[in-house]
Amino acid sequence: MRSSPISARVQELAPYVPGEQPAGGSLIKLNTNENPYPPSPRVAEAVAREAAGVLQLYPSATAEPLREKAAAVYGVDCEEVLVGNGSDEILAMCLRACIDDGDSVAYPLPTYSLYRTLGEIAGARVVEVPAEPGVIPEALAAERAAVTFLCTPNSPTGVVLPLAEVASFAAGASGLVVVDEAYVDFGATSALEIFRQHPNMLVARTFSKSFSLAGLRLGLAFGSRGLVAEMMKVKDSYNVSRLAIAAGVAALDDYAWMESNVDRICATRARVIDTLRERGYVVSDSRANFFWLNCGKEGGAAVYERLRERGVLVRFFDHDGLRSGVRVTVGSDAEMERFLEALSE
Amino acid sequence: MRSSPISARVQELAPYVPGEQPAGGSLIKLNTNENPYPPSPRVAEAVAREAAGVLQLYPSATAEPLREKAAAVYGVDCEEVLVGNGSDEILAMCLRACIDDGDSVAYPLPTYSLYRTLGEIAGARVVEVPAEPGVIPEALAAERAAVTFLCTPNSPTGVVLPLAEVASFAAGASGLVVVDEAYVDFGATSALEIFRQHPNMLVARTFSKSFSLAGLRLGLAFGSRGLVAEMMKVKDSYNVSRLAIAAGVAALDDYAWMESNVDRICATRARVIDTLRERGYVVSDSRANFFWLNCGKEGGAAVYERLRERGVLVRFFDHDGLRSGVRVTVGSDAEMERFLEALSE
Repeated sequence: MRSSPISARVQELAPYVPGEQPAGGSLIKLNTNENPYPPSPRVAEAVAREAAGVLQLYPSATAEPLREKAAAVYGVDCEEVLVGNGSDEILAMCLRACIDDGDSVAYPLPTYSLYRTLGEIAGARVVEVPAEPGVIPEALAAERAAVTFLCTPNSPTGVVLPLAEVASFAAGASGLVVVDEAYVDFGATSALEIFRQHPNMLVARTFSKSFSLAGLRLGLAFGSRGLVAEMMKVKDSYNVSRLAIAAGVAALDDYAWMESNVDRICATRARVIDTLRERGYVVSDSRANFFWLNCGKEGGAAVYERLRERGVLVRFFDHDGLRSGVRVTVGSDAEMERFLEALSE
Repeated sequence: MRSSPISARVQELAPYVPGEQPAGGSLIKLNTNENPYPPSPRVAEAVAREAAGVLQLYPSATAEPLREKAAAVYGVDCEEVLVGNGSDEILAMCLRACIDDGDSVAYPLPTYSLYRTLGEIAGARVVEVPAEPGVIPEALAAERAAVTFLCTPNSPTGVVLPLAEVASFAAGASGLVVVDEAYVDFGATSALEIFRQHPNMLVARTFSKSFSLAGLRLGLAFGSRGLVAEMMKVKDSYNVSRLAIAAGVAALDDYAWMESNVDRICATRARVIDTLRERGYVVSDSRANFFWLNCGKEGGAAVYERLRERGVLVRFFDHDGLRSGVRVTVGSDAEMERFLEALSE
């Protein structure tokens, strides 16, 4: 008899630590890559309408209205679209669908730290392959993992992987290749152009970043019909609410609103990075709504603390290879002015 | 190299088939145990308010406002409450947290058919133990499963398990005992009274039935602090949206609205069952918002078809032991009149 009903695998698991969500609104929040601008007003209208409708009835089990809308907007077939309760659910479903005992999950490091947690929950062997920004290391292909995560633009660096490298990697892989495009709208080329040539490729997207809907929990994935049909088997039977379906359709319906916010964020990003470089900071180019700030001798922890004392919250990762800097979300112009002031104080 | 990135376990999986959700509103829908009455108007108000708020920011990762509200309403500690994206997610989390290779999932049969699907997704050995209504069979305890599901009131029978039997079973079990109380508000005694004496017991609830919120995807679970803390590790990092949190708080805030709807449904249930018995049908007592109609020589499939032709949708389960009848959701009085008419035609 075991003393707890919980698996030892889970008891030993270090849970994923999400970025701090401070109560109250006094801090400038540049730590979890949220959009500083609100979503399209059509979202709130659609949600209010749906909430006054028939919430007592189950939603479409496959979120069909949103699948159809996404298919039309992204130019794919409905059966090539998968809807998730945030892209986090989609990433978790990849492991549920593909990992058997003894299988491995692999990804280049540094990257989104949730991949490790998801791999450990699934009982997979987790293989982290150190990589230079923008490069898929050869050792990753050699690993032949059941699931490989490629985050592009990558977090926390903001650097993209060349699409040709992603295609070549997928062509040589037998396992699932998950192209995590959470930040793609901020200036990268999407693997949506190539997924049909790779039946083992799933392209994951989220409404949390460019669409300003982190509070909604909604993600999309694109893959071959066969792959999507198999992934559907491991989702919760009704995984997305009527409210989320309505909100997602409304957000896609006002695509121009998203693009306009993205343009503002990209302009702010360029100005802030230029200013930082003028001040002597080392900042790599970013195609995401954040950038990696190398903190030099002061180190990431000290800069994090110093900024926090001045009311600006950025993200420090207490992981090997990441202690030298902080990740800074691109907020509004006013927020970034405060950030620049706080940094120079 | 395998030909598909999907695990053979998943490829062979027969997916869960949810009850039909017909498009358009011409059918009387008595097939998925939805509530015929709308949720409290406070829900739509709270959702509209939240949708106009800060959807661009992540929600509380632990759905803290709802945990706190549920703790106050149900008289437990906040740390004893777990919030899920529907109780389906909570049931799935039980397996993710407890199943290791070679472990078994067990439950009395007949019951909620999702348990089998969830067990197979998790790669567990699924053990179904035939049982008389209202009885926990001795063979179930002998199985010593890593996870045991006890659905009470049970679906599709509507019959409850005596609380003393549930307590005794949990006391003798080393694995997790999940008391699935999706239908408890319709007249059963809750294991909330006893879960603190059983650190291996998790009591699962849903907002889909008594609270009229099937379209929202929101569930609760109650268990010891240690159990809830471990379960939290395997949930998606932000598993419940800002809209769902606000809706859940508003629904619990108007508890009397739910109770009033439950009273109406229970009164309708009593009248319909009396009428059916007067007509010579065999119907067992139900403590849920549905009942099991024994269809005698005609059989469940024929009655299902006959009712469907007359615009009334009930649930036929094409499973061993369940083909002799249909499950009928208790709708409004007007809907049940139509059901009774259609049945007698």
